[in-house]
Amino acid sequence: MKKLKIGIIGVGRLGYEHACNIANRVPGSELVAICDGNFARAKEVAEELGVTAVYSDPKEMCANPEVEAVAIVTNTASHVEMIQIAMDAGKHVFCEKPLADTVEKCKEAEKIIESHPELIFMLGFMRRYDHSYQVAKQKMENGDIGDVILVRCYSQDPISIIQGTLEYAPRSGGQFIDMSIHDIDLIRWLTGSEPKKLWAIGGCFEFKQYKDWDDGDNVSCLMQCENDAMAFFFAGRAAAHGSHVETEIVGTRGTLRIAGVPASSMVEVMSEHGVCRECYQDFVTRWHDAYITEMEEFCDCVAKGRQGSPNVYDGTASTNIAFRCKESFLKNELLTLE
Amino acid sequence: MKKLKIGIIGVGRLGYEHACNIANRVPGSELVAICDGNFARAKEVAEELGVTAVYSDPKEMCANPEVEAVAIVTNTASHVEMIQIAMDAGKHVFCEKPLADTVEKCKEAEKIIESHPELIFMLGFMRRYDHSYQVAKQKMENGDIGDVILVRCYSQDPISIIQGTLEYAPRSGGQFIDMSIHDIDLIRWLTGSEPKKLWAIGGCFEFKQYKDWDDGDNVSCLMQCENDAMAFFFAGRAAAHGSHVETEIVGTRGTLRIAGVPASSMVEVMSEHGVCRECYQDFVTRWHDAYITEMEEFCDCVAKGRQGSPNVYDGTASTNIAFRCKESFLKNELLTLE
Amino acid sequence: MKKLKIGIIGVGRLGYEHACNIANRVPGSELVAICDGNFARAKEVAEELGVTAVYSDPKEMCANPEVEAVAIVTNTASHVEMIQIAMDAGKHVFCEKPLADTVEKCKEAEKIIESHPELIFMLGFMRRYDHSYQVAKQKMENGDIGDVILVRCYSQDPISIIQGTLEYAPRSGGQFIDMSIHDIDLIRWLTGSEPKKLWAIGGCFEFKQYKDWDDGDNVSCLMQCENDAMAFFFAGRAAAHGSHVETEIVGTRGTLRIAGVPASSMVEVMSEHGVCRECYQDFVTRWHDAYITEMEEFCDCVAKGRQGSPNVYDGTASTNIAFRCKESFLKNELLTLE
Amino acid sequence: MKKLKIGIIGVGRLGYEHACNIANRVPGSELVAICDGNFARAKEVAEELGVTAVYSDPKEMCANPEVEAVAIVTNTASHVEMIQIAMDAGKHVFCEKPLADTVEKCKEAEKIIESHPELIFMLGFMRRYDHSYQVAKQKMENGDIGDVILVRCYSQDPISIIQGTLEYAPRSGGQFIDMSIHDIDLIRWLTGSEPKKLWAIGGCFEFKQYKDWDDGDNVSCLMQCENDAMAFFFAGRAAAHGSHVETEIVGTRGTLRIAGVPASSMVEVMSEHGVCRECYQDFVTRWHDAYITEMEEFCDCVAKGRQGSPNVYDGTASTNIAFRCKESFLKNELLTLE
Repeated sequence: MKKLKIGIIGVGRLGYEHACNIANRVPGSELVAICDGNFARAKEVAEELGVTAVYSDPKEMCANPEVEAVAIVTNTASHVEMIQIAMDAGKHVFCEKPLADTVEKCKEAEKIIESHPELIFMLGFMRRYDHSYQVAKQKMENGDIGDVILVRCYSQDPISIIQGTLEYAPRSGGQFIDMSIHDIDLIRWLTGSEPKKLWAIGGCFEFKQYKDWDDGDNVSCLMQCENDAMAFFFAGRAAAHGSHVETEIVGTRGTLRIAGVPASSMVEVMSEHGVCRECYQDFVTRWHDAYITEMEEFCDCVAKGRQGSPNVYDGTASTNIAFRCKESFLKNELLTLE
Repeated sequence: MKKLKIGIIGVGRLGYEHACNIANRVPGSELVAICDGNFARAKEVAEELGVTAVYSDPKEMCANPEVEAVAIVTNTASHVEMIQIAMDAGKHVFCEKPLADTVEKCKEAEKIIESHPELIFMLGFMRRYDHSYQVAKQKMENGDIGDVILVRCYSQDPISIIQGTLEYAPRSGGQFIDMSIHDIDLIRWLTGSEPKKLWAIGGCFEFKQYKDWDDGDNVSCLMQCENDAMAFFFAGRAAAHGSHVETEIVGTRGTLRIAGVPASSMVEVMSEHGVCRECYQDFVTRWHDAYITEMEEFCDCVAKGRQGSPNVYDGTASTNIAFRCKESFLKNELLTLE
Repeated sequence: MKKLKIGIIGVGRLGYEHACNIANRVPGSELVAICDGNFARAKEVAEELGVTAVYSDPKEMCANPEVEAVAIVTNTASHVEMIQIAMDAGKHVFCEKPLADTVEKCKEAEKIIESHPELIFMLGFMRRYDHSYQVAKQKMENGDIGDVILVRCYSQDPISIIQGTLEYAPRSGGQFIDMSIHDIDLIRWLTGSEPKKLWAIGGCFEFKQYKDWDDGDNVSCLMQCENDAMAFFFAGRAAAHGSHVETEIVGTRGTLRIAGVPASSMVEVMSEHGVCRECYQDFVTRWHDAYITEMEEFCDCVAKGRQGSPNVYDGTASTNIAFRCKESFLKNELLTLE
Repeated sequence: MKKLKIGIIGVGRLGYEHACNIANRVPGSELVAICDGNFARAKEVAEELGVTAVYSDPKEMCANPEVEAVAIVTNTASHVEMIQIAMDAGKHVFCEKPLADTVEKCKEAEKIIESHPELIFMLGFMRRYDHSYQVAKQKMENGDIGDVILVRCYSQDPISIIQGTLEYAPRSGGQFIDMSIHDIDLIRWLTGSEPKKLWAIGGCFEFKQYKDWDDGDNVSCLMQCENDAMAFFFAGRAAAHGSHVETEIVGTRGTLRIAGVPASSMVEVMSEHGVCRECYQDFVTRWHDAYITEMEEFCDCVAKGRQGSPNVYDGTASTNIAFRCKESFLKNELLTLE
């Protein structure tokens, strides 16, 4: 079994996770190069993972002929530029979500990718590759729950990491672009449809500073899809109990609820607080396996010459919807999507 | 302890339940008279419960001086007329939800009740008196979850009783007036606020006949309250697993979820289907204790001369909101409430 | 529907509960007389419940011709004497568990009851009448889980009431006679068999004073039944989370677990402790409905002239086994039951 | 980071799992050699995993100087011989459970290992390395639950794989040696004590053929430990719902329950069967991560020159207790361990 030789651009928190997976956890991949604007950081990770090709310039890394594919885990604003560099150099591309920080850039990404049909592209909405989501999707495809009536999504960060959340917030793009875009992707994936109308609301219930960023600390949105399926998502920044990502699909024949209790282990603790399940406190731990599985899928796509999923159009669609949610939230108006 | 002597008007399915409770389960009450347009039915129930005063005419029953209070469990359209008859005869009144089938009639009820300040009135939104809802409300009042961010409500009837559901549907008033009004009442009670904007959607996902009744078999609504709390409700007619009434309150300091699994007993069944909790198949069983507790509360109100809660204004408000939801659903428009 | 006129002997904590139920919660019963050695207490309860016939002497109460049946809720040592008095006076008898404080007295009770075949007798192992246990038993009778392989029982008192537990302990008869006898009864009822061998162990893990009472604060026992079914019970005095009574029946075709999480409501609390279910803190609340249901059953037995279940022989058998458990525990030996 | 070069002996079902992990999932290891008595099988796996050194003779493999450590995943009867071969060749050893099929051989293993203090040895009781068990153990070490009162263990295979279970049974060593030994190891690890008395029982409740193998299809055992902690285990062969391994530790300050519901994903399925959690259907999937974690630990032990845990003495102790359990079961006697 030939291993895909991957170079990674960006080894911040999530980039480091991907780097470790590519190097050591994904059977079909090999980490052969690391690039980070912060060269010291790149060297540190390279040393830990036994990688000898280290760069601060993405173009240089992409000029390395040993690199077959590139994983892009940089800040969102630079994603499309990185895609361009990598594809111009003939590399397959795995790109973290969201695709870009504007819909215009998403369209540019579409053009770049369309002009390289020989290269594989895959976007990193890892939730689709989580085992529980895969189980649910499989059941839906089996017809176990009939037609989709409602998709309900929760995405809450835990209060335990609020300091980091607040520091990151101003440059995050806001709740809809940064966080809810995951749920927007899930809604499209699970309903098999596109929202035709939506209304987003929210507020600053605890952290008033979100007001300054034209954002809310807690927001929600109701969507009506083209196939009449309903979708509701809620996103919050400071859940007392943990990182709570829950998704439910109500169908005409049954219902699937994923992670109604986002327990971080199979341990029930019986104490003066009752019978308790402790919860995930960070998203990297929650999605550890999903990050591996999506990378396995990317390697398999390259090996078999098939395009990855979610693709660039999923990236554009989710980004566009997220911006319309934000617009609805800011105007407090019901919006109709074309 | 003196028992409140109650006469009941209407002994259909729910009326019979109330009659049994008043006669045998509520310590502070005594069932002394039964009235039903179907006199044979009234006699049958009277015989079973050992009641000698039986009527087909509500006015006659209210002329009985032994009757101190009246429980109204007739069809919604007649509620206000019954309130008038009872109060004119000097009786305290417990009236089932919804208060009336039009907002105008609700206003009439307000006037009748205001003109009898010496009489106790209480409206029957029994969910408020369910033990779990009382526990949750108490925790909120203790400040355990901080300020309310989101209230989420599900109300689903089970597929197992779909035949009865479909027969009743055309004269039910529709999902919003008949079913979601419970959730509307809960949302007002739990947020302590009134909706200022709402958008309701839905469709006929399985039972196309709802279209003929200007209704959907599954509907949902997003509301923004005056205090910025968000509220979402979903109502369906045919859940595979059972009668599913779930309510969640997300607060700034914690979250309370009521009946996430609407299990009908404490038994876990481990079988080829996995580890399963069987669910309630009808609302009367689910709310058995709540019906008793609300009646105990009514008796206590009369005994102590204090007005009941929910009151007539709660009835008007919930009815008004339910009609605005229906309007929003039919127009597919975002509505602003005055 | 004629109501059974019941006189109660003993209105301590549990007697008071039964008195309230007989007076106000059980459709088929009426509380007509109250007797307690503490006459002031008897009068207090009688006043609260509107009962005019009050006694300190059981014989006097049993001489009251209005009394048709007697509920015995006195201390265990006096149960058989009370049965004698009541039956000699021609009254039906409901007697709280355990039947007696010695096996010899149980045998006496058998003779008394056998000599009054015209009178109904029922022993109060209320767990059998709990809704969840009834659901489980019904499933077993349906053949849903095949043959019984193992019955596992937990009975833990909560630490929150440890003061009362410790005060009561010296005169309780000890863990096996006082507490585990419930599980012994369940094991007999659920396996449909009798233990042929048993080994009981335990210790004073936290409260050393139990040593002085020839008891343990936590004990357990493994039993082998005549039909080869296995049974394990565990009893403790100070569970951090609450009153934890859990029963599991492993069968050849499936498993039933009752109250794996002894949650006191349907509320999930999401807080810094995780997702928590708060638990029952006292047995009277846990078994509130079961106490009512068993009394309904007693009334129905009298009305229909059929004997109650559990019966006097169940009382003797469970008491005998409990004493053999204690013997095994004290000798640390495997015992064979004849 | 230098990777430990491991050769594996035995690539049957579990051996294959270990081989894949060593090759692709464990960051600190590299699979450099494969040996299997079935050479065709060895070659097949080698090809899949890109390993060039393939053997049918363990001695030959151990003569390969590139091999630094050996993973032994052969049949139990040959474990000690393999340990001898590997250690004589100067290789570190990871050996699957159970250590051996007789206590005598365990003692031999002790001698071999003691004579090679420079080599690392670790025994594969993977449950100790499962995330949930690690969480529980950590909480115990934190003092969260006080002193151990009771450890309860369930180990049930699912009915879905009964054909394989029955085929394997005659050469498995029986329930106690093959299956319950896991729970025996957990009991020793969690109580920090050794059993001083035990009584094991069981029967052939469904599959009478176990009788021919001096075994039961369902067995259980109660143990009293030297520190007075109580332990109960139950093992079965045909649970309707799935592979059910559950462990509970009742302590003086709290209780930890691991995998009370052995759900195979975070999906709740709401269907006509209620709200269901589907369960693991095979042990390899259940313990996938634990197998990786224990191998990571082995690599770390070798890297740091510290001995592994569980060690050879844990292997002897668990094997000895398992045989005493079997003896108790066959004689139906309470046994005292020296």
